[in-house]
Amino acid sequence: MWQPEHDMLKIWQPALAPTFWERLPGRRPLFVLTVAYTATVTLPGLSGAGTTAELRELTATADAEILAHGLARGLPGGVPSNPTGAPGPSIITRAAFDLLAPLRFLCVDAGLKASPDVPDLERLEGAAPGAAVTTGQALGSDESRARLLFEAGLRLGDELGRREAAGGYLVLAESVPGGTTTALGLLLGLGLDAEKRVSSSMPGNAHTLKLAAVEAGLAAGGFSKGTFSDQPLRAAAALGDPMQPAVAGIALAASAYCPVILAGGTQMAAVLALAAALHRHAPFFSLPASQALSSAPSAAVLSSFSNLALVTTSWVARDPTGDLAGLGREIEERFGPLPVPYLAARLNFSASRYPALRLYEQGYVKEGVGAGAAAFIAMLHKNLSAAQLLPSIEQTYRRLVLKEENIEP
Amino acid sequence: MWQPEHDMLKIWQPALAPTFWERLPGRRPLFVLTVAYTATVTLPGLSGAGTTAELRELTATADAEILAHGLARGLPGGVPSNPTGAPGPSIITRAAFDLLAPLRFLCVDAGLKASPDVPDLERLEGAAPGAAVTTGQALGSDESRARLLFEAGLRLGDELGRREAAGGYLVLAESVPGGTTTALGLLLGLGLDAEKRVSSSMPGNAHTLKLAAVEAGLAAGGFSKGTFSDQPLRAAAALGDPMQPAVAGIALAASAYCPVILAGGTQMAAVLALAAALHRHAPFFSLPASQALSSAPSAAVLSSFSNLALVTTSWVARDPTGDLAGLGREIEERFGPLPVPYLAARLNFSASRYPALRLYEQGYVKEGVGAGAAAFIAMLHKNLSAAQLLPSIEQTYRRLVLKEENIEP
Repeated sequence: MWQPEHDMLKIWQPALAPTFWERLPGRRPLFVLTVAYTATVTLPGLSGAGTTAELRELTATADAEILAHGLARGLPGGVPSNPTGAPGPSIITRAAFDLLAPLRFLCVDAGLKASPDVPDLERLEGAAPGAAVTTGQALGSDESRARLLFEAGLRLGDELGRREAAGGYLVLAESVPGGTTTALGLLLGLGLDAEKRVSSSMPGNAHTLKLAAVEAGLAAGGFSKGTFSDQPLRAAAALGDPMQPAVAGIALAASAYCPVILAGGTQMAAVLALAAALHRHAPFFSLPASQALSSAPSAAVLSSFSNLALVTTSWVARDPTGDLAGLGREIEERFGPLPVPYLAARLNFSASRYPALRLYEQGYVKEGVGAGAAAFIAMLHKNLSAAQLLPSIEQTYRRLVLKEENIEP
Repeated sequence: MWQPEHDMLKIWQPALAPTFWERLPGRRPLFVLTVAYTATVTLPGLSGAGTTAELRELTATADAEILAHGLARGLPGGVPSNPTGAPGPSIITRAAFDLLAPLRFLCVDAGLKASPDVPDLERLEGAAPGAAVTTGQALGSDESRARLLFEAGLRLGDELGRREAAGGYLVLAESVPGGTTTALGLLLGLGLDAEKRVSSSMPGNAHTLKLAAVEAGLAAGGFSKGTFSDQPLRAAAALGDPMQPAVAGIALAASAYCPVILAGGTQMAAVLALAAALHRHAPFFSLPASQALSSAPSAAVLSSFSNLALVTTSWVARDPTGDLAGLGREIEERFGPLPVPYLAARLNFSASRYPALRLYEQGYVKEGVGAGAAAFIAMLHKNLSAAQLLPSIEQTYRRLVLKEENIEP
């Protein structure tokens, strides 16, 4: 049985949590996965998404296909896996999709090398793979492409938000291998003290490597921490990835109309920071793009943060090498007030019969593909406890990874 | 000019901050300083309160006298100082007293060796100096003395709360040298992951020494972390100090009637944890003491946390060796929901003309004697910015420490 006070961990703004989750039961979720490539993933030692460098390149595509079709046709092993053998977080998200079937799903391509083969796909204007953060021009040498992506996100968010205003809500997930490093890049570019706070798909984290990559990018561009505190899109352009401005735009516009979940951990905290910085430094109704918006009224936009929550997993929340609450405080201090609660689904795989799943408890996989938020909405709409999700996740694991037959999706 | 969004830092539950501070301007503060002794202060290397071991013993008495009289008669140097020469935080609190004169003041003795010489003094039933945390029986071998102090605190809080219900509020400060170590003891006894989270009156903190002291106490009693998670008063009895149950009682009872500020950093977070644990595990209206209470109705008691805020300094909030927001999250997770915002006055001494004050910016002093909350209420009631407080604090420093003449208190 779903008992939010028991099944969810409150990471930041706990007082706002019940207000948010009590608004959802009568509404229908639309799951929006934004995928993008950043060459940051090719830097050695930064990402645990994918067992080899080659497979890591396929991770985002496979994640999208798993959500759309229940399996990734082109991927050996069935799901993107960690080098240790732990299956990627898409098994959690897919298990939620199975429980909630038919769950409405949209894939947003903000810049993959090749778009995934899924029926509902939106390739954004400006979509293109990102360069490595070490170049200091991850999305080019000026903010033009980041702005294209942000404005395309705004238009899409405006459309989705209006459509869901009456009875829906959005879950905004991402799959961007290497994305915790670009999250660090964006946060440092904005001037936030994020050095030791981003999480990782690896148990030891890789703070030193990540910071070195971001510092190389700062040096390459002649920038320093906080250079872009008043030019948020420049921060994403120099040190981020294509997903960030896109999802910031979707979230800002859609949350004027309906509840919106930022489905992720420190990567989504970086997106929230970007959205808040953009909102503060350049309220988007005064952006050139606003003319292209049907008519987002400024009042609605100004109040939009009250429709937002960040939802992740308890592995991120309890990550001893990360500090999501600390990020919340930093973002609040710099760009607040932001009435956005941060929550985590209390997933626990220590009782799993599968050693590969028990690896989650050792920090080998923590989040991705909106796994925490997917678990959250599955619990909420199917009246399940966090513990009761495990059999469904194990079933998905058997079907996708162990290839056992006679298992219905 | 007072601009709370600028002059205050929101550490935890930022959304609740405005609700709290907007309730105060029409009310009058009563400043309540609870003092106590713990022999923990004699353990080497744990406390920076007082320049020598001998003077450290006088710190709490001197702090009380400075608030009551504007100076500490028996103390060489005028105010308790850090071994580096940085004056103790009582200069900040005293400056606020000067600005707000006449500020109503009550001293509560929860267990000094000798009560301070101040006009409004309440020595609580059960008051007696605490033993060192290393004994594992800081307040005795059972919870009887902790309970006496808690119940005496409840009675006092009930009385004060009723008296202030119409137009006042309480600021609950403490002076307990060695108190961050007993805060760690109490928090670990309650089972919270507080190991690296308590702040310190020293720049390097002393996590290892503090933890060793608490672990010695756990070992001495045959306890382990979390032994007392369901016996909160036993946690204080074994590993805490006399101030903790007293202030937990005052806060719990008084906040049923009026706003209450827990004036301190991680020490007050430990008090809040104790109050929350007591409330959860044994709603106090069912305690034996409840018969002695005039008539605290359970409904009021159950809603009391919404009248509470914790207020400290930005030195604590930004302490890289502490983690007050992390404590907030731990306490919320274990004993919540607690709608209690944590705030910090953005004091900054880097522009001071006095080198001894600039030492604050290096972490030599962070909090104590309710300095952060005193600054907060001075700003709020006198319409001053944090920066505008500095001249008053410097003036108090000149008068108390430099002994310059012709300076009016």
